[in-house]
Amino acid sequence: MSKGDVTRDRIVSEAAPIFNQRGYRGCSIQDVMKATGLQKGGIYRHFSSKEELAAEAFQYSWRKVLEVRSIGGPVEGGAIAALLDRVHQFVRVPSPVVGGCPLMNTAVDADDTNPLLRSLATHAIQEWRARLVGIVEQGIVEGEIRAEVQASRIANAIIAMLEGALMISRLEGTKQAVLDAETTLTAMILSLAPTKLIDGPLRRRKAKTKPSLPNRADVRAAK
Amino acid sequence: MSKGDVTRDRIVSEAAPIFNQRGYRGCSIQDVMKATGLQKGGIYRHFSSKEELAAEAFQYSWRKVLEVRSIGGPVEGGAIAALLDRVHQFVRVPSPVVGGCPLMNTAVDADDTNPLLRSLATHAIQEWRARLVGIVEQGIVEGEIRAEVQASRIANAIIAMLEGALMISRLEGTKQAVLDAETTLTAMILSLAPTKLIDGPLRRRKAKTKPSLPNRADVRAAK
Repeated sequence: MSKGDVTRDRIVSEAAPIFNQRGYRGCSIQDVMKATGLQKGGIYRHFSSKEELAAEAFQYSWRKVLEVRSIGGPVEGGAIAALLDRVHQFVRVPSPVVGGCPLMNTAVDADDTNPLLRSLATHAIQEWRARLVGIVEQGIVEGEIRAEVQASRIANAIIAMLEGALMISRLEGTKQAVLDAETTLTAMILSLAPTKLIDGPLRRRKAKTKPSLPNRADVRAAK
Repeated sequence: MSKGDVTRDRIVSEAAPIFNQRGYRGCSIQDVMKATGLQKGGIYRHFSSKEELAAEAFQYSWRKVLEVRSIGGPVEGGAIAALLDRVHQFVRVPSPVVGGCPLMNTAVDADDTNPLLRSLATHAIQEWRARLVGIVEQGIVEGEIRAEVQASRIANAIIAMLEGALMISRLEGTKQAVLDAETTLTAMILSLAPTKLIDGPLRRRKAKTKPSLPNRADVRAAK
């Protein structure tokens, strides 16, 4: 790694928390100069624009989140356990970059004003969702999750609830909202299992009045 | 209403969407001057600081949201119906102020940098939650919602899921995430009713095979 690369990486890692805390417009090159101890020219030698630096800063922050919150970790012990673990990690492990979740910050910051940052945040959401969808679909294939579960809806629910709860928790300065989200999501995830008792007895109850209906066990066996 | 009051109100209503789109730091007094056609002195005649103007702009935006998304509307037809209606309104009615939900925008924008805006956003969350808690508690009193339901957890879940889904939807430019949130929250809200079938049949089935196991009602009573 050249000395130039080292400096470039240092600028990105030191700019990342400033962009994350203050947003694109709220973070000036002066702020980055102050944090890095570099002159303006020393920064723009490595980046063609503030936009490019902000984009790299976001990607740096997001990679950190992926690492420490195990969003992209291996799926072990089955799909339900993996989903519960993802939620648990998100709730228990604080954001590795000062200023809260870089995805939410960038999403809210960039939605109206910055197409490059917006597309990076969109990509990050899609990446996160794809990983969750993959776990749910694996669970369906392995019979651990009901076949009719819509994987993308579950993934969106998990991401939305965690991000929204994080917003509340940060605002209020208490973990209550994210702990509440964990409880609610745990119930939702557990209810994805085919052994969820509501289905069996519900069908049986129907079967009592309409004996021609197939019960759930039949439907499953037929698949 | 004096001419001065009219001008003051106009500044607030014209500054509100700019603050909502760009955030506190991203909205300059020059932006407000351009939007209102007023000179700097004409604006600062009515507000002691940009912070005061931003605070009034947020409160203006939040009142608009309360109105059109019926967050504070009357509770009719029972608690479950009222909760479903609140979720439905939020999902179907777009933000009345350009730039998305002012609560999320202000929460994310102000969490690290602006104590006054942060306290106003915190107050807005608490107000919204208190209204939802009120509906859940009314449902418990009237027997429409199970007595052991923790009202504040349900309120946090609704707010978190809606706000998080809105973030995803705005970012992706599609309503899918908020529609998914509506589906998930509808299931959650319907499951608050004491008639939820999982409880009845679950108890019966367990009682049949393992008579010594505590049933669900016992577990709940023991808490």
